[in-house]
Amino acid sequence: MKRLSLDEAKILLEKCRASLKQVDMTRGRPSKQQLEIGMRMLVRAGELDYTYAGGDARNYGDMKGIPAARELFAEVFGVSKENVVVLDGSSLSIMYRLVANAMDFGVMGCNPWREQGRVKFLCPAPGYDRHFAICEEFGIDMVTVPMLADGPDMDMIERLVEEDASVKGVWCVPKYSNPTGIVFSDSTVKRFAALKPAAKDFRIFWDNAYIVHSLTGEQHHLENIFDAAKKFGSEDMVYELTSTSKITFAGSGIAALAASEGNIADFISHLQFEMINPNKVNQVMHAAYLKDVDNITRIMGEHAALLRPKFELVDRRLFEAFGRDCPDVKWTRPLGGYFISLDVNGVAARVGELTKYAGVKFTKVGATYPYGKDPHNSNIRIAPSIPSLEELDFAMDALISAIAIALEE
Amino acid sequence: MKRLSLDEAKILLEKCRASLKQVDMTRGRPSKQQLEIGMRMLVRAGELDYTYAGGDARNYGDMKGIPAARELFAEVFGVSKENVVVLDGSSLSIMYRLVANAMDFGVMGCNPWREQGRVKFLCPAPGYDRHFAICEEFGIDMVTVPMLADGPDMDMIERLVEEDASVKGVWCVPKYSNPTGIVFSDSTVKRFAALKPAAKDFRIFWDNAYIVHSLTGEQHHLENIFDAAKKFGSEDMVYELTSTSKITFAGSGIAALAASEGNIADFISHLQFEMINPNKVNQVMHAAYLKDVDNITRIMGEHAALLRPKFELVDRRLFEAFGRDCPDVKWTRPLGGYFISLDVNGVAARVGELTKYAGVKFTKVGATYPYGKDPHNSNIRIAPSIPSLEELDFAMDALISAIAIALEE
Repeated sequence: MKRLSLDEAKILLEKCRASLKQVDMTRGRPSKQQLEIGMRMLVRAGELDYTYAGGDARNYGDMKGIPAARELFAEVFGVSKENVVVLDGSSLSIMYRLVANAMDFGVMGCNPWREQGRVKFLCPAPGYDRHFAICEEFGIDMVTVPMLADGPDMDMIERLVEEDASVKGVWCVPKYSNPTGIVFSDSTVKRFAALKPAAKDFRIFWDNAYIVHSLTGEQHHLENIFDAAKKFGSEDMVYELTSTSKITFAGSGIAALAASEGNIADFISHLQFEMINPNKVNQVMHAAYLKDVDNITRIMGEHAALLRPKFELVDRRLFEAFGRDCPDVKWTRPLGGYFISLDVNGVAARVGELTKYAGVKFTKVGATYPYGKDPHNSNIRIAPSIPSLEELDFAMDALISAIAIALEE
Repeated sequence: MKRLSLDEAKILLEKCRASLKQVDMTRGRPSKQQLEIGMRMLVRAGELDYTYAGGDARNYGDMKGIPAARELFAEVFGVSKENVVVLDGSSLSIMYRLVANAMDFGVMGCNPWREQGRVKFLCPAPGYDRHFAICEEFGIDMVTVPMLADGPDMDMIERLVEEDASVKGVWCVPKYSNPTGIVFSDSTVKRFAALKPAAKDFRIFWDNAYIVHSLTGEQHHLENIFDAAKKFGSEDMVYELTSTSKITFAGSGIAALAASEGNIADFISHLQFEMINPNKVNQVMHAAYLKDVDNITRIMGEHAALLRPKFELVDRRLFEAFGRDCPDVKWTRPLGGYFISLDVNGVAARVGELTKYAGVKFTKVGATYPYGKDPHNSNIRIAPSIPSLEELDFAMDALISAIAIALEE
């Protein structure tokens, strides 16, 4: 470990700026090499059979997705095919629709949220800014819940969900959480499944975006929330989501919802006004390419091989600069997902300014908290996937010198 | 012409039923042969370059669609690229979103429709049932406007739009209208563009679903509504839509919105909460395959060659049975699109029952009118695209005998 002096840090930062390099690490985007993996899917597109028992993927019909795609995600989620709907693009779109439907039409026969006065969502933070943005769009109040090492503060969640009928939802990224990278413990998952909400139309948005996104090759265990929910008869309380954005193509893949039969019927009862069917041609391509969970695991191993050195470089550079015991500089060492969560005791905004000056952009400071306001001005989300190792090394020069300067100031 | 006697008709209908054949003509779906045309697009999918200046179609970004797809639809619509957004699947989804946004957030700074008391849409009828269904979903009152030979009754539209601020929209399929097949006259288009609505947030939903869907090879003229609107400064009043559902793959193609810069900005201001980008990989494939309007015209010629004999068969069989001057049996002879609109003076429901009995399903009688209620019980939408010529001949046996029986009863 070699902590830079203020002078050394200033010299390094100016050197970064003078190089005129620009690195953008604002979002968790796959790199070009990762995108090339998915080309194997497109190469075969012309040879595939787009028909199946009861349908033709190229024609109208099958609003819930083609059978093969529903079966694939059923295996990924560990639920039955009847509980899966496969749509286009991103799980974000499905979550937006679920919230919009709840606001305008109500959840499974309940009154629309819009007619129930102010409603609230619980927002474990640091968390995913696009979850929080959906709340802002619909005027849903956000309550920040601290994110701990094994999941959100469940004492707080239990109290709020079970006492306050205006609490209608909670956002979760239960595996390789965005941005802290943690996996929810079995106990956390069980406590979610055991919730007895005051509101009948309370829903857990279980955004399992990184369900197969191990960085180490090892498959880390996350308790199946629907298995847990079965024991408490609480299956209606859960919407689980995922997509192939970081398996095939970002935003051009397919996305899936797992939910109880009642929730699926409720969702489809509105979806039928919006679309005749999702892009089923894309679903045939994905089902043929991804095949099953074993094969997805192999593909994700290829992604991990490209991503791991980048995560290791960030960790090594931070360790060399600050060690593991620096009280002012703490960061996560995720086993999967797309982010390293860095906490720089009260100087995140200043660090953001300085790195931007040096040519390196991180996710907007504060974005990982509701309303974009980090109460401790501490959290920085590092998304190391898209830069090359060389660019990343440069970005770490900027980051490390910026932290050193900001802490000294 | 040979009109069947009641006895002959009954015998023919029973013969149809006894054959146990089933023909489904409920929707305007492309046939398998038509879908095969689009396979040329997929065969090339592995060879295409998915990168472009400023982006990679396989990664996040470009919420408005890739430049090549926006340019393509700009040419199709006859507008500038800046006025085009290209999204997934169907124009239905875009229209649903536009209405949902207007209800919940308001149009370009106006109060949400939801907060303005009951709002109304004008519904030229017979028209497209899925337009009417969106109104039902959002509790928008529908006002039926008669569809004439050159477009909707514009006297009525002008009066309602200009006098009533609760009138917020009008549905139109201006070219090869669904289901009557007519093309709006220049005068109709100009009168639309010249509307001076009482409501600032009134919008024309110009669903140009069949913009390139000639059945004859001839390209029939529809006045460009944005050109007309320019003269009146009314560009903000128009949303124009189309998709490739009947050019490439139904529901698995791409769809586009053309609108003023203000409307596009308004639309995107909400879309950004729902998605990061549409399926741009599919857009690259479509742009490379469709190329330009000339090439689309050639492709549509291939579709027309498959569709035309089916439309001709329906026309010939109806003509042989009822002639052109039968007051009780009138039908359209469309130059494009997917439908023949048949009027059977007051007996449509009975005809529907009888054909169903014989094994042939048409679009639910009444569906072409708001609330599914045809005031004259007269209109039947014939969608001849999907059955083979042989199946269609059988379906016409059933239809003709059913009409003959229903009219005699």
